[in-house]
Amino acid sequence: MITIYHLDTSRSERIVWLMEELGLEYKLELFQRNANGSAPDALREIHALGKAPVIRDGDAVLAESGAIVDYIVHRYAGDRLAVAPAAAAYARYIYWFHFAEGSLMSLLILALVIGRVPEANASPVRTRVLERMKQTLFFIDSELAQATYFAGSAFTAADVMMTFPFTTMRHFLNYDLAPYANILAYLQRIESRPAYQKAMALAGPKEK
Amino acid sequence: MITIYHLDTSRSERIVWLMEELGLEYKLELFQRNANGSAPDALREIHALGKAPVIRDGDAVLAESGAIVDYIVHRYAGDRLAVAPAAAAYARYIYWFHFAEGSLMSLLILALVIGRVPEANASPVRTRVLERMKQTLFFIDSELAQATYFAGSAFTAADVMMTFPFTTMRHFLNYDLAPYANILAYLQRIESRPAYQKAMALAGPKEK
Repeated sequence: MITIYHLDTSRSERIVWLMEELGLEYKLELFQRNANGSAPDALREIHALGKAPVIRDGDAVLAESGAIVDYIVHRYAGDRLAVAPAAAAYARYIYWFHFAEGSLMSLLILALVIGRVPEANASPVRTRVLERMKQTLFFIDSELAQATYFAGSAFTAADVMMTFPFTTMRHFLNYDLAPYANILAYLQRIESRPAYQKAMALAGPKEK
Repeated sequence: MITIYHLDTSRSERIVWLMEELGLEYKLELFQRNANGSAPDALREIHALGKAPVIRDGDAVLAESGAIVDYIVHRYAGDRLAVAPAAAAYARYIYWFHFAEGSLMSLLILALVIGRVPEANASPVRTRVLERMKQTLFFIDSELAQATYFAGSAFTAADVMMTFPFTTMRHFLNYDLAPYANILAYLQRIESRPAYQKAMALAGPKEK
C-alpha cells in the first residue's frame, strides 16, 4: 500500500486528494511545519531534499508532485484521470499538467521569495515578477472561460495539479483572485467535489 | 509536420534535440532575443505567454517543455525514449522528468532573478537560495554516481529534460560545476551524442 508523507499546508494535499478521487487505499503520515514555516528535519530522513510530497511504495521512495501523480495514475489507476495520447484533449491535458509546477508554481514561489526580501521592495525586478504574475493569471482565467475543467469537459489529473496554486498557496502569498471570475467559478466546482472535501478535512490547511 | 519555434539560448533547444534523437522530421523557425535578453514580441503572436518552447502541430499550438516532450514521445514516437509504467525504472524516469522544471529550473531561476536585485546582495534570503542550490546539485551528483543516465542504463527523455539546466542555463547563471564530478562526467556522455551535437549546431547557444 502507498504511504503518503504529508506536510501540513503543502503540495502533498494533492496526493491525498488524488487517492480519494481514485478511491485507492493509502496510509497517511502527518508532519508539521517548524514554527518558522520550514519543513521539519524528519522529512530529510525520508528523502534527501526534505520536501513534500513524498510517497513510499514498497522499497521505492518517490518525490515531486508531477512525478507522484503520473506514477499513481499510470501504475495504479489504469490511466483513470489521465487523457490518452490519441485523444483530442491530450495536448490540453499534458500542457496544464506540466504548467502547474513548471510555470505557475515556479512564478508564485519567485514572487513569494522576492516578497521576503524587504530591500527589494522598490526593485524593478520585483515589479516585473508581479506583472508577470498578473499576465499569467489573466491567461489562465481566459482559458477557463472556454472549459469546465482544464483538459475540457472532464475532470482529470491536470486539475489535481492546477488547484493547489489557487487554494492553499494563497495562505502563503495572499494574492487576490477577485479580478479572475472564471478561476473563482472553477474553484467552486472543485470545492464541491466530495473527494476534495474529504481530502481537505484530512490534509488541508488548518483554520487558524 | 511539427514546427518548432526556437528562441535562441533557451529551453527550446531541448525540442530540437529530442527530434534529432528520434529521427523525426520538423520545421525550425528561429527567434532572436532582444538586446536586453528578453523574448521578442513576435513570440506572443504564437502563444499568449510569449515564451519558448512552443510548437505547432496542425491547428494545435503547445507550450511548456515537459508537455511538448511528453506529447512528441507519446503521440509521435511510439513511446520511444519513455519508460513504461510497469518497468522497474519508471519511478526514476518520471521523477527526473518532472524534477527538471518542477524543482531544478524553478530553483535556478529563483537564484538568477534574486541575483539581478543588487539591493538583495546581503539578504539572508539570497544566502538560503544559494545554499539550497548547492544542496540540490550535491544531491543530483550523488544520484548520478549510481547510473549512466538519469533513469538508469538507458538514455531517455528524462535526460533531454535534465541537460539544459547544466549546459545552456549556465550562460545565464554562470555557476561552477567543478565540485560535481559525476555531473561533469554525465555531461561529457551527453555531449558525445551525435543527435545532441547536431541539435546544438542548429539551435544551441552561439559563441560570442
